[in-house]
Amino acid sequence: MEVQQVLHMNGGVGDTSYANNSVVQRTIITKEMHIVEDAILDLYCMSYPKKLSIADLGCSSGPNTLFVISHIIDTIEMKCCQLNHPLPEFQMFLNDLPGNDFNTLFSYLPDFYEKLKEEKHASLAQCFMAGVAGSFYGRLFPSKSLDFIHSSNSLHWLSQVPQGLQNEMGISLNKGNIYIAKTSPPSVFRAYLAQFQRDFYLFLKSRSEEVIGGGRMVLTVTGRGSLDPPECYSQWELMTQTLNDMVSQGVIEQEKVDSFNIPCYAPSIHELEAIVEIEGSFSLDRLEIIEFDIFTSGRNGAKCIRAVTESLLADQFGAVIMDDLFRIYEQKVDEHLSNKKVNHLALSMTRKG
Amino acid sequence: MEVQQVLHMNGGVGDTSYANNSVVQRTIITKEMHIVEDAILDLYCMSYPKKLSIADLGCSSGPNTLFVISHIIDTIEMKCCQLNHPLPEFQMFLNDLPGNDFNTLFSYLPDFYEKLKEEKHASLAQCFMAGVAGSFYGRLFPSKSLDFIHSSNSLHWLSQVPQGLQNEMGISLNKGNIYIAKTSPPSVFRAYLAQFQRDFYLFLKSRSEEVIGGGRMVLTVTGRGSLDPPECYSQWELMTQTLNDMVSQGVIEQEKVDSFNIPCYAPSIHELEAIVEIEGSFSLDRLEIIEFDIFTSGRNGAKCIRAVTESLLADQFGAVIMDDLFRIYEQKVDEHLSNKKVNHLALSMTRKG
Repeated sequence: MEVQQVLHMNGGVGDTSYANNSVVQRTIITKEMHIVEDAILDLYCMSYPKKLSIADLGCSSGPNTLFVISHIIDTIEMKCCQLNHPLPEFQMFLNDLPGNDFNTLFSYLPDFYEKLKEEKHASLAQCFMAGVAGSFYGRLFPSKSLDFIHSSNSLHWLSQVPQGLQNEMGISLNKGNIYIAKTSPPSVFRAYLAQFQRDFYLFLKSRSEEVIGGGRMVLTVTGRGSLDPPECYSQWELMTQTLNDMVSQGVIEQEKVDSFNIPCYAPSIHELEAIVEIEGSFSLDRLEIIEFDIFTSGRNGAKCIRAVTESLLADQFGAVIMDDLFRIYEQKVDEHLSNKKVNHLALSMTRKG
Repeated sequence: MEVQQVLHMNGGVGDTSYANNSVVQRTIITKEMHIVEDAILDLYCMSYPKKLSIADLGCSSGPNTLFVISHIIDTIEMKCCQLNHPLPEFQMFLNDLPGNDFNTLFSYLPDFYEKLKEEKHASLAQCFMAGVAGSFYGRLFPSKSLDFIHSSNSLHWLSQVPQGLQNEMGISLNKGNIYIAKTSPPSVFRAYLAQFQRDFYLFLKSRSEEVIGGGRMVLTVTGRGSLDPPECYSQWELMTQTLNDMVSQGVIEQEKVDSFNIPCYAPSIHELEAIVEIEGSFSLDRLEIIEFDIFTSGRNGAKCIRAVTESLLADQFGAVIMDDLFRIYEQKVDEHLSNKKVNHLALSMTRKG
């Protein structure tokens, strides 16, 4: 599976779309917003630039994208009002993989600009949006062209399924699982961690070329509290159970589950810190753990996970069984609603030099 | 009709898509390419910048878009080879209205980057693409952020249907026509010209804020050779005949044709020159007339015009009759294949100051 060609949040604005099923991600963004505010204000007050170039990486195509942008503009506007400064121009880059539904995202823009004009006409806010299609595990922007980078809830997606999840005979080392599970051998955990380390290093290296010295970056990533690998992602455990149920029913072939591993990794704080330090271009100003209950009902949980993972699951198991799969998954989430705490890790960094 | 919400080239990659029916536009681009080459080389050799920010306005979503971009990169690369300079970084902005199919456009990018890497790896070309959804009759980019602007075959589209095509009673002054025709009263021509003047002025004013001093702009627009308004766009005459045939057949209501006017204008050289001079920010370095036969067959002609105008016609007359409409139109183009010369006007300009 070519993750970068397959993975995308569900497009459009229908019942299973990401746009209509991204309340959880909105919650995360709301909870991290004070960190974004502090960082963008620090940056602005360093030199009061006339223009701020800002990128949102892994923006997807829902209302959340413009929610972050609006909030950043509001934050700067309040500061400018206090200081009696004119608002800077904003150049906003919205990035996601080429399979992302940019058409839907762009369809929100006329209303967004209209609202901006009405609310901010006194201070003449100019905001220029651009969409950038490509993987953030590589260069996306010219050298030293960005002041601020934001990425919420995207960096746990790996650039590819980790290598080394099969032995030399091509036999899966992670049979019956789709992520690191209690029954997975240690080599599975090591393969996932190694892939995350490579990817996050490449992310930081790429951004270090694009951000000006003193520029800021705020990232959130689904992480885990403890150092122990298993059970970081309980929703994947329930998905594994769902898939194995469907194997028992004869709907899915055992081999399809054995060979499927979700290209996603929930790092620990220490793992993140270590990579930031090794890469060396950014100083880590702040690291916070955001803990929250992920789902309020099985229905919400299933819709959320469907909007996010359907492209990957449909690629492996076929689009026709998706309705059944998420019906079973919904029941399982309902049965396990307690103890669905998820940890998000928020990092605020400054480009050295 | 809100032109900016309705108008878009046909999306996707199917039989009636713009991507598959834009050979005519490709011909225009090929014929103007020497003007683009000269302008971009002039610009580059003025200061050998490390980064070139370039915008293509009205890019649509076909292979033509990336054809222009490739050619610009090739041109600079050859010069850099001659001079033994490293290639600059390219930041490319691809602009069109929000209804444009950016998803299809972005789906070409992975292959485009791959090809660029293979061909240019020796000189380490870095090209960063971004899509910008919005009308070019307004600001699209931050102040002084662009070095070069290109727009091919887009500026004859007006921002709206001209006002003043009805009398005070709301009765159409252009009955039975959809554009300036021999039978149109002079007020129709004046209304079209006034709208084009307002729009092109606004275009130049907006670009003058965005382009650096000494920056360059190359535009082509469907124009007319003579000063006489009528018959500039013979394809609209054939479309008028087609629509009137369908009125006779009872398929379309007369009133629908009477109230429809295509938001498009083919200016003369003198009209263009006058607006450039009045706006005043750009010096006109070069103005060329590119004359060519527009269609080689009725089938090609109908497919080309369908890819470009279907969004507007379907909005007014209903999507269900589009197949029939373009069947009749195809016959008419076939009957009038001789004498289908079209004039394109190519302008090369420099931002003063």
